[in-house]
Amino acid sequence: MAADVERVYPAGQVALREVGLRDGLQLTKAFPSTAAKSDWIRREHAAGVRHFEVGSFLPASRFPQFADVRALADLVNGLGAHSLGLALNERGARDALAAGVTELTVVMSATEAHNMANARRPREQSLAEIAGTVRLRDDAGSATLINVGIAMATGCSLSGAVDPAEVERLAAACLEAGADLVGIADTVGYGGPRQIADLCRRMTALMGGRPYVVHLHDTRGMGLANALAAYDAGARVFDASLAGLGGCPFAPGATGNVVFEDLVYLFETAGIRTGIDLEEVIAVREILSREMPDETLHGTLAQAGPPKGMTWQARAA
Amino acid sequence: MAADVERVYPAGQVALREVGLRDGLQLTKAFPSTAAKSDWIRREHAAGVRHFEVGSFLPASRFPQFADVRALADLVNGLGAHSLGLALNERGARDALAAGVTELTVVMSATEAHNMANARRPREQSLAEIAGTVRLRDDAGSATLINVGIAMATGCSLSGAVDPAEVERLAAACLEAGADLVGIADTVGYGGPRQIADLCRRMTALMGGRPYVVHLHDTRGMGLANALAAYDAGARVFDASLAGLGGCPFAPGATGNVVFEDLVYLFETAGIRTGIDLEEVIAVREILSREMPDETLHGTLAQAGPPKGMTWQARAA
Repeated sequence: MAADVERVYPAGQVALREVGLRDGLQLTKAFPSTAAKSDWIRREHAAGVRHFEVGSFLPASRFPQFADVRALADLVNGLGAHSLGLALNERGARDALAAGVTELTVVMSATEAHNMANARRPREQSLAEIAGTVRLRDDAGSATLINVGIAMATGCSLSGAVDPAEVERLAAACLEAGADLVGIADTVGYGGPRQIADLCRRMTALMGGRPYVVHLHDTRGMGLANALAAYDAGARVFDASLAGLGGCPFAPGATGNVVFEDLVYLFETAGIRTGIDLEEVIAVREILSREMPDETLHGTLAQAGPPKGMTWQARAA
Repeated sequence: MAADVERVYPAGQVALREVGLRDGLQLTKAFPSTAAKSDWIRREHAAGVRHFEVGSFLPASRFPQFADVRALADLVNGLGAHSLGLALNERGARDALAAGVTELTVVMSATEAHNMANARRPREQSLAEIAGTVRLRDDAGSATLINVGIAMATGCSLSGAVDPAEVERLAAACLEAGADLVGIADTVGYGGPRQIADLCRRMTALMGGRPYVVHLHDTRGMGLANALAAYDAGARVFDASLAGLGGCPFAPGATGNVVFEDLVYLFETAGIRTGIDLEEVIAVREILSREMPDETLHGTLAQAGPPKGMTWQARAA
């Protein structure tokens, strides 16, 4: 079944995806109740957010923070927004397809060493399994998009430097395997803006007008500079999480995803419309303060507020 | 006396100026002992830092944090590095010249409203006083450079938006008044990267090869993205403070200056040599932790450390 990428990611428009409900909760001890998560989604949707990663399809016994992933997918779909889910194996993929998420992300690593350590299989086997997931989707008559997130795309905690040409090769192999989308992830925050720009220029050329996802972590403070560099190199789809929720499994204690609200502000001040109401999104942080009181909320914008007395929002084109 | 700008800021090289000892201590209740400040300077100097703002020339009775400004200027000068000082009036300027700082910064605001509120005089009078400071310098046979910092250059907490053409006009008037350097300050962190790029392109053209200073605050998280945008537009001289020390007098509780060590990392990952050893600078944060235990130290890089197993430093040209 032809997957309608263009409907989910209209050409030329920036899409900021809220991944706090999945990546943001991956490692936290406390997590919001389903009611609070639903409120989070509804309020961000009202503020203009249209893409929500709602969870991982994993056994609820071991990952209670994602036990409500199906209910949240239903909620997002019911709002007419786009639900994104993660699966780490075939069972998860079947569950995600059954749940009717708009997009299913499967992960592979840019390096052989990390793929072996993380997924316990060579990258070639991961690519074969991606093709299998695409077949599964097609056999089910599902419209779910298949996205492959390439972890460690800018440097690997095990192997060090990663050749961008190798990421390009893997991305092409993912498309060959039938993936609708590819994502490049600065998983451990090793990337700097020139490097991200180089990688994104390659991805823009490779994808030939199709969108690709840029997943940045702010581990070393480069998140926003990297995001702008990626945009300038042609990237239009960005992951981020409210209050930068989410650490990094390979860098304990480190800052997490790029801060969603700061990314909105960055783009708007740069004249790039996001369609998102910044102050409404900032206000949603109160849910996190209440539900996860021990979690550090990142981002300085929430404290300072947007500038007063001047226009900083991008104007309508 | 011809002031030797080129000796202090070699053409084409990036200069990162440590302003933590002045701007960073402007508003703090606690401040390091002179011995600790000296250690801070010596250790950063050993790490490759060559420009230190050592304090404000203000009455020690009201500003005890700057009582040792002369001793610190002597220390920096004795190391063969460049000492920078701030003065808010003629008395301060005389003291700064007597202390033999490499560079004296005087401040005016981009907007009439803020200049009146902050300095209680119209901008025209400030410009006349700048000319007076230059005469004072020349009459004293001093080699001190005169830098005019233009506050609120990207937006004003009182007047809102600031026309970059107006900043350009003021910068030209400062040069006309005899200033050796001009600085543009995003005092309240209103600037975004496109705006900073626009302003810096204008400044690069105006200055015709002479350096100008970019003074960024990270109040809204844009500090590093703005710094890279400024560099790409031709800026080479940047202010920053260790651990982002320093708030903003017009935005209580807000994040301070752009984080020095993060700026080093940003440039190095972008292939731009700073001449500064990142890990040695990060280690100096311990002085702040010890001497100012209640102060928030900003910057995520210090927690995560630079990437392991890969080259992120700019290579020798």
